[in-house]
Amino acid sequence: MDLMDMGIEQDFLLIKALEDGVTIIGITRGRESKLQHTEKLDVGEVMAAQFTQNIAAMKIRGRALIMSRHGSVISGDDSTKV
Amino acid sequence: MDLMDMGIEQDFLLIKALEDGVTIIGITRGRESKLQHTEKLDVGEVMAAQFTQNIAAMKIRGRALIMSRHGSVISGDDSTKV
Amino acid sequence: MDLMDMGIEQDFLLIKALEDGVTIIGITRGRESKLQHTEKLDVGEVMAAQFTQNIAAMKIRGRALIMSRHGSVISGDDSTKV
Amino acid sequence: MDLMDMGIEQDFLLIKALEDGVTIIGITRGRESKLQHTEKLDVGEVMAAQFTQNIAAMKIRGRALIMSRHGSVISGDDSTKV
Amino acid sequence: MDLMDMGIEQDFLLIKALEDGVTIIGITRGRESKLQHTEKLDVGEVMAAQFTQNIAAMKIRGRALIMSRHGSVISGDDSTKV
Amino acid sequence: MDLMDMGIEQDFLLIKALEDGVTIIGITRGRESKLQHTEKLDVGEVMAAQFTQNIAAMKIRGRALIMSRHGSVISGDDSTKV
Amino acid sequence: MDLMDMGIEQDFLLIKALEDGVTIIGITRGRESKLQHTEKLDVGEVMAAQFTQNIAAMKIRGRALIMSRHGSVISGDDSTKV
Amino acid sequence: MDLMDMGIEQDFLLIKALEDGVTIIGITRGRESKLQHTEKLDVGEVMAAQFTQNIAAMKIRGRALIMSRHGSVISGDDSTKV
Amino acid sequence: MDLMDMGIEQDFLLIKALEDGVTIIGITRGRESKLQHTEKLDVGEVMAAQFTQNIAAMKIRGRALIMSRHGSVISGDDSTKV
Amino acid sequence: MDLMDMGIEQDFLLIKALEDGVTIIGITRGRESKLQHTEKLDVGEVMAAQFTQNIAAMKIRGRALIMSRHGSVISGDDSTKV
Amino acid sequence: MDLMDMGIEQDFLLIKALEDGVTIIGITRGRESKLQHTEKLDVGEVMAAQFTQNIAAMKIRGRALIMSRHGSVISGDDSTKV
Amino acid sequence: MDLMDMGIEQDFLLIKALEDGVTIIGITRGRESKLQHTEKLDVGEVMAAQFTQNIAAMKIRGRALIMSRHGSVISGDDSTKV
Repeated sequence: MDLMDMGIEQDFLLIKALEDGVTIIGITRGRESKLQHTEKLDVGEVMAAQFTQNIAAMKIRGRALIMSRHGSVISGDDSTKV
Repeated sequence: MDLMDMGIEQDFLLIKALEDGVTIIGITRGRESKLQHTEKLDVGEVMAAQFTQNIAAMKIRGRALIMSRHGSVISGDDSTKV
Repeated sequence: MDLMDMGIEQDFLLIKALEDGVTIIGITRGRESKLQHTEKLDVGEVMAAQFTQNIAAMKIRGRALIMSRHGSVISGDDSTKV
Repeated sequence: MDLMDMGIEQDFLLIKALEDGVTIIGITRGRESKLQHTEKLDVGEVMAAQFTQNIAAMKIRGRALIMSRHGSVISGDDSTKV
Repeated sequence: MDLMDMGIEQDFLLIKALEDGVTIIGITRGRESKLQHTEKLDVGEVMAAQFTQNIAAMKIRGRALIMSRHGSVISGDDSTKV
Repeated sequence: MDLMDMGIEQDFLLIKALEDGVTIIGITRGRESKLQHTEKLDVGEVMAAQFTQNIAAMKIRGRALIMSRHGSVISGDDSTKV
Repeated sequence: MDLMDMGIEQDFLLIKALEDGVTIIGITRGRESKLQHTEKLDVGEVMAAQFTQNIAAMKIRGRALIMSRHGSVISGDDSTKV
Repeated sequence: MDLMDMGIEQDFLLIKALEDGVTIIGITRGRESKLQHTEKLDVGEVMAAQFTQNIAAMKIRGRALIMSRHGSVISGDDSTKV
Repeated sequence: MDLMDMGIEQDFLLIKALEDGVTIIGITRGRESKLQHTEKLDVGEVMAAQFTQNIAAMKIRGRALIMSRHGSVISGDDSTKV
Repeated sequence: MDLMDMGIEQDFLLIKALEDGVTIIGITRGRESKLQHTEKLDVGEVMAAQFTQNIAAMKIRGRALIMSRHGSVISGDDSTKV
Repeated sequence: MDLMDMGIEQDFLLIKALEDGVTIIGITRGRESKLQHTEKLDVGEVMAAQFTQNIAAMKIRGRALIMSRHGSVISGDDSTKV
Repeated sequence: MDLMDMGIEQDFLLIKALEDGVTIIGITRGRESKLQHTEKLDVGEVMAAQFTQNIAAMKIRGRALIMSRHGSVISGDDSTKV
């Protein structure tokens, strides 16, 4: 068990898949930025994902609604109108 | 007993199932992101679930109302209109 | 006595039963998520329940008004209109 | 004397009995959730009760006005209209 | 002298008696909830009373105006209209 | 000198006597609640009084304007209209 | 030099004398509440006075404008209309 | 060097002399309240003065504009209309 | 594991690619500012990226919507009208 | 190097000279209040000056615009209308 | 690794180049203020840059939109109208 | 490396030169206030400069827009109308 687990609250994203196969990729914190984890969402599925001791960035592929502290945005190919 | 239990408040989601069989999946914090726990909700059931020392992400399957710090969203197949 | 009892304030839910037999189930924090406690409310009874060192999630069954930091919601079978 | 007594402020409920025999039941914090204390209020009596090192939940039976950080609610059998 | 006296500010109630013989009862914090202190107010008298290391709940009997962080309420038999 | 003197700010009441002989009574913090101090104000005199390491409650007798964090109230016999 | 001098900011009153001979009396913090200091203001003079390690209450005699965190009030005999 | 110099920010007054000879008198913190320093301002001069480890009160004589956290006030003999 | 991992929350950018080949370049914190990591986004992809112990600056090339604490901006050649 | 340099942010004044020869005088913190530093500004020059471990008061002579947390004021002889 | 990396959040600027060759120059913190790093942006490129343990100032040359906690400003020769 | 580098955020000024040769002069913190650094800006150049462990004041000469926590001001000879 390490110190981040002291639980000082991290921010999170709330992501809703608007089509099948939305991918959420966690990218590692630290000297090297590598893929840490990939999660697949089917249409309608929702994921709430915190930044963690291991994940400093998240990449979302496919059409999804992404809600965050800085506002909401829709990802995906046919979403270029924000 | 470990340090996160110092109780520095974690955020939580408030989830109401809008159909039977809504699934809430806790995904682990740490080097590996694995399923930690699966909870089933029948229609009308409500769950309030915190991020914890062990859970850094939650995935919701099935039609449900999800209330969070960043706003509310309805999950599920037939909910693509947000 | 352990550290969470240092009293750094935890959030709570305020739950009012709108029918007999509303069930509030506390689910444990930690490596395993298990039932920790079940509380029954009859119609009109109100319960204020904090997240604790031992309880990281609460599940509400039956028709009830649930008030929280993220807003209010009515649980129960015939409550699908929120 | 233990650490919670360091006095980091806990939240409280303000409860006003609207009939005789309103019961406020304190439920213990910790591994087991047990009754810790029962307090009876007659009509018109008001009680302000904090969550404490020993009490993580409170149950109110009978018709009462309950004021909290998340808003106010009226408990009791004939109060199903909120 | 103990730690709560470090003075991290506790909340208080402001209570004004609206009739003679209003009673304010302090109930102890800790394993057992017992009467700690009883204070009598005559009509027009005002009392400001903090939660303390020893008092985790207060009970008010008789007609009084009670002002708190969660709002104001009038106690007493003939006050059932809030 | 003890720890409360570390100066973590305590709340205070601002009290203005609206008649001669207004009494402000400090009641002790701790296991026993006793009178600690009595202060007399004549009409027009104002007193600003903090809760302290020794005073956890204050009682005001006689007609006075009392200003606090929770609002203002007028004490005294002929003040029953708030 | 003692700990309060760590400088955790204390609240203050801003007092403007509206007649000659306004008196500001500092009353001691601690087991006994005694006069600590008396300051005289002539008409038009202004004093800004903090609560301190030694002063937990202040008493103002004579006609003055008193500005504080809880609002402003005019002291003095002929000021009974607030 | 002593602890207050840790720099936890103290409040300050902003004082503008509206006539020659405005006097700002610093009064000491601690067991005894004595004059610590006297500063003279001529008309139009402005002084920003913090409460310090040594100064817990300030007295302003003569016509001046005084700006503070609790609002602004004009000192001086012919300023009795606030 | 090092100290930044204590998890005191860092700010993040939310970036949505508005064309293929948007590049997000992490630039190192510390004595030397070097490229640490390059991430490519195709049109519609979204990335949420925190500042970290290793990354003190981010450079975005290509047409993208960038949401931050200070507001939103559109990057890219043909975006000179903000 | 001493403790104030821990960088807990101090407040500052923003001063713009509206004529030649505006003088900003830093007055020392501590047992004695002495001149610490004098800075001359010509018309149009702006100075942003923090309170520091050594400077607890600042005196401004000459016509200048002074912006602070408590608002803005114009110093100088011919500025008596605020 | 040093202490700033404890991650207590630093402020950042968000800079969008409005022409080719915008230069962002990091200037060192500490006894001497020297150039630490120079970054070139082409038109449309955006950079988010934190103040760091090594950089206490940033200088922007060329036409760019600069967004900060204190508002936004456009740099560059032909931008004199703000 | 010293303690201020712990990164507890310092305030900064955002300065835009409105003519060639704007000078920003850093003045030292500490017992003596001396020039620490001089930076020259040409028209259109922008500088964001933090107060630091070494710089407690900044002086701006020449026509510039200065944005700060207390508002904005234009420096320079021909700017006497604010």
